Amino acid sequence: MAKYDLDTIRHSTAHLMAHAISRLYKNYNPQFGIGPVIENGFYYDIDMDYKIHDDELVKIEAEMQKIIDEKIVISKKVFTRDENLKFWADKNQPLKVEVVTGIPSDQEISCYEQGDFIDLCRGPHVESTGHLPKFFKLMNTAGAYWKGDSKNKMLQRIYAVSFTTKKQLEDHLHFLEEAKKRDHRKLGKELELFLFDSIAPGSPFFMPKGTIVYNELVSFMRRIYQKYDYTEVITPMMLDTDLWKTSGHYAHYKDDMYMLHVDNREFAMKPMNCPCHMLMYSHFKYSYRDLPMRFADFGRLHRFELAGSLAGLTRVRSFCQDDAHIFIALEGIQEEIKKLLEMFFVCYDHFGFTEINIGLSTRPESKLGSDETWDIAESALKVALDSSGHEYHINAGDGAFYGPKIDIQISDAIGRRHQLGTIQLDFQLPERFDLKFNAHDGTEQRPVVIHRALLGSLERFIGVYLEHVAGVFPFWLAPEQAVIVPISTDKHLGYAKEVCQKMKDLGFRVRLDDRNETMGYKTRQIQTAKIPFMLVIGDREMESHSFSVRAHGEMKSVTLTIDETIKKFTELQAEKVPTKFRI
Amino acid sequence: MAKYDLDTIRHSTAHLMAHAISRLYKNYNPQFGIGPVIENGFYYDIDMDYKIHDDELVKIEAEMQKIIDEKIVISKKVFTRDENLKFWADKNQPLKVEVVTGIPSDQEISCYEQGDFIDLCRGPHVESTGHLPKFFKLMNTAGAYWKGDSKNKMLQRIYAVSFTTKKQLEDHLHFLEEAKKRDHRKLGKELELFLFDSIAPGSPFFMPKGTIVYNELVSFMRRIYQKYDYTEVITPMMLDTDLWKTSGHYAHYKDDMYMLHVDNREFAMKPMNCPCHMLMYSHFKYSYRDLPMRFADFGRLHRFELAGSLAGLTRVRSFCQDDAHIFIALEGIQEEIKKLLEMFFVCYDHFGFTEINIGLSTRPESKLGSDETWDIAESALKVALDSSGHEYHINAGDGAFYGPKIDIQISDAIGRRHQLGTIQLDFQLPERFDLKFNAHDGTEQRPVVIHRALLGSLERFIGVYLEHVAGVFPFWLAPEQAVIVPISTDKHLGYAKEVCQKMKDLGFRVRLDDRNETMGYKTRQIQTAKIPFMLVIGDREMESHSFSVRAHGEMKSVTLTIDETIKKFTELQAEKVPTKFRI
Repeated sequence: MAKYDLDTIRHSTAHLMAHAISRLYKNYNPQFGIGPVIENGFYYDIDMDYKIHDDELVKIEAEMQKIIDEKIVISKKVFTRDENLKFWADKNQPLKVEVVTGIPSDQEISCYEQGDFIDLCRGPHVESTGHLPKFFKLMNTAGAYWKGDSKNKMLQRIYAVSFTTKKQLEDHLHFLEEAKKRDHRKLGKELELFLFDSIAPGSPFFMPKGTIVYNELVSFMRRIYQKYDYTEVITPMMLDTDLWKTSGHYAHYKDDMYMLHVDNREFAMKPMNCPCHMLMYSHFKYSYRDLPMRFADFGRLHRFELAGSLAGLTRVRSFCQDDAHIFIALEGIQEEIKKLLEMFFVCYDHFGFTEINIGLSTRPESKLGSDETWDIAESALKVALDSSGHEYHINAGDGAFYGPKIDIQISDAIGRRHQLGTIQLDFQLPERFDLKFNAHDGTEQRPVVIHRALLGSLERFIGVYLEHVAGVFPFWLAPEQAVIVPISTDKHLGYAKEVCQKMKDLGFRVRLDDRNETMGYKTRQIQTAKIPFMLVIGDREMESHSFSVRAHGEMKSVTLTIDETIKKFTELQAEKVPTKFRI
Repeated sequence: MAKYDLDTIRHSTAHLMAHAISRLYKNYNPQFGIGPVIENGFYYDIDMDYKIHDDELVKIEAEMQKIIDEKIVISKKVFTRDENLKFWADKNQPLKVEVVTGIPSDQEISCYEQGDFIDLCRGPHVESTGHLPKFFKLMNTAGAYWKGDSKNKMLQRIYAVSFTTKKQLEDHLHFLEEAKKRDHRKLGKELELFLFDSIAPGSPFFMPKGTIVYNELVSFMRRIYQKYDYTEVITPMMLDTDLWKTSGHYAHYKDDMYMLHVDNREFAMKPMNCPCHMLMYSHFKYSYRDLPMRFADFGRLHRFELAGSLAGLTRVRSFCQDDAHIFIALEGIQEEIKKLLEMFFVCYDHFGFTEINIGLSTRPESKLGSDETWDIAESALKVALDSSGHEYHINAGDGAFYGPKIDIQISDAIGRRHQLGTIQLDFQLPERFDLKFNAHDGTEQRPVVIHRALLGSLERFIGVYLEHVAGVFPFWLAPEQAVIVPISTDKHLGYAKEVCQKMKDLGFRVRLDDRNETMGYKTRQIQTAKIPFMLVIGDREMESHSFSVRAHGEMKSVTLTIDETIKKFTELQAEKVPTKFRI
């Protein structure tokens, strides 16, 4: 089968599905729209006097396999446009007629025929249904407007995946299964981390457990900031549009900003922190001794997104970034980028993101700043990247008009890539806000600004990370770190309470489960909640001041004294600081 | 002089000032408006062909003292309205004519005469200028519209303070001096804590140093929350007005909310967190075992305030509260209020607010909930207050229609009272959001909600606290805890850097001052910046691994080894936790 490329196979498999449907549902007047190849497979849009349900898909699959076994020859036919129009009208296929009408009249129009089924198609296709691999699966049905226009009729769309080997199909189905299990929206609900409500579209409500994760992430970044000499600032959220005019956001980003009118003035909710930081810088006089100056800001940002495009934590209207702006002299860039890359890799590694993809985007045709300045900046980024020891690719001409940038993608546990970090040089904002510093030689010079975010949006990071670890947080990040379970709520409860308080006082997030439920029930609940440790107390444990300790995912328990448990927890808690920075 | 009350003395002193002005500025046609008694003194509004400057006030004071020494008899004269109108018209005092015109025609109108000065006045007055104490001071001049109406003419107003003893005057002037020195707007700028910009009225920009204070306060409250079993949540800021209609804010608070229009829906920026917490509660099912449940939220709130009324951090449009809502069964209130009071007093004491004034506001005439429910609630609050050992007063009928409340005021270092905390019972929101819990007996019951804030608005608290401590933060809260100063930047710099890094790694906020400035200059700067410690390193210190340590406000230094310094700092840092909770 290697003679056909994957797209040809998928395209022919789409025809195969349409063929099977035309046989199975011929009494319901099936009218075919289009059936394009998409990532991992294809779909087909169909109009019919009957609604196909998901549980009927296996029947269609079986018919498709039958047609493969029938080894029907597939042949190309070329008609003129007029012949084609008549042909599809005769066959009562108005959607095809519409497609033909949309094709320029001088264009040759081909169709592919396989037995009693014929479809309008540019091709190419396999030569016989017998050549098609059986490694496909019809996934689900969905409604879709004809030509994607909500003014048109709603058709039935069937999604399918299709591969050339059994292993590829199995791997992909396994991947989908994994992705479904890891879906952060599902996990967020099960683990009681956050919720959404239509009262505030795209704006998560973090429940107590989700807030612990959120605050621990902020706290993690603050520790990192301390190591890399960042200072944090707090800035307003509602600012006069004069600011956004100065920054350029009003001209270029207005449609994504939320506007308010107060005191006959127009204000906007900030979609980014940068203009606030520029303004703060401009309030003071700085010298070369003060630079680089690094303003970090966890301020809440608001950006308009279409209601239909909102998706869990990964696309929201309200979020915070681990955002910072660095004010720096042009000649300091290389050293700073080197530090930044180190900082980024230390953190990504800490979260278990070891597969990293780096892109350097260079000057576009239309740009601000002289070629000389761009030479210095691009070369500084390259040298810093080279010395980081990480591979990177160059996206020539893909930089913003205001400066070159480095984008960093990570791969998660099931191989999906996510853009997290970005390092963006900016020659423009310092111009627009007329920022200056007193240089070594006494002259006034213009600083460069570096925008950088490491985790990116905290909301999105929580979504990505939750899927990466499938809801199993490391000890330091787990909302609940351990549950203490007395075997008898009569005999062991008092002691369990005492020990629980002791662990709480030491700063561990420990809960006592004193309900009158069976040990099996409690164990299952603790496992489902993915809590790192279950600490059971019975007679023997009370006597020996110990716990029967069961780690998440383990089938067996070990006995540890309370002091040993505290020691273990203390070590695990220390992991909140990257190894590099532990004292 | 005890025969006259303070108001009479102040009123007569106002006449005395007018008398002095009529003598000193007689060539400028002085026309007198009104001169009422105000807190601590009086003012007088005058129209004149000459503008009195602040540096002329001493001259007026001297003339007033002279008139006292002249011991002029003050006598009351009663005229009819018509006589009065003619009298003031003849004297070319049109403002007095206007005042008389405004008095009902059947009313007796008195004037008080002292030598060549006469003023329209209801009295009473002292009998002779010789009876007046000389313990007054003219403070400043200001412009004021006649009758407070901007359509009228602008007059000159002179403010004065006046007391019966020298000590009272001196104490008051000292208080004013202190208040001026402590003005948080002035300190905020000098200590580089925060700034304001007209681009975002009433919305502070916290600079790096102010942000440290801000974050340490949040961190302080989080430690307290951990001790008292609070959980934190994060909620959206922009919510559909449907929510505000359910909560009642739309009907009662709309004018103070910022509205936005998105997707043909109306949204409001949250002015309070409560409706978000009600909504979150309503998403789950809770039982009596889960209560009390305490949701804390440091979410940013926005409330409209008139641009003219904005004042530093104490009246802003954008702020966060240490806000929490407690969901609780009615019978649990007393125990919870007791815990709350303990928590409040532990914290206030920690900030050095030991003079506390508590008010309990009880049911108003128009109220929600049965008398029986109010009986239980009010009695629970009283019993809890009684057992707290603190005195309190009852504001009968001053409770909100939705529940009784406790308001807590503190007195600052110069005796000014500020309301910080509030504990507010609410029977209404649980109704409006139809909140329930499964009670012990299996029935569904309605929880009560307690709104409480301890520090109140963090912005306002920082303003109040900054004035309380006059900018001298305790070690744990100080943005910079110590500055290391090498005596010679040649000989001692390397070592100073090393030691500085060591202290930083231990988590102390230490800075190295390696500038080429004199020791005297650096010392003065460190003192002005109110930094707790200056650590000097010279030959002797390098040799003995020690610092010459000078604490803020001390004139002398002591020598401490580096280890002793670290020990001292560690002890001081531990003070961030109230004594009660230190392990």
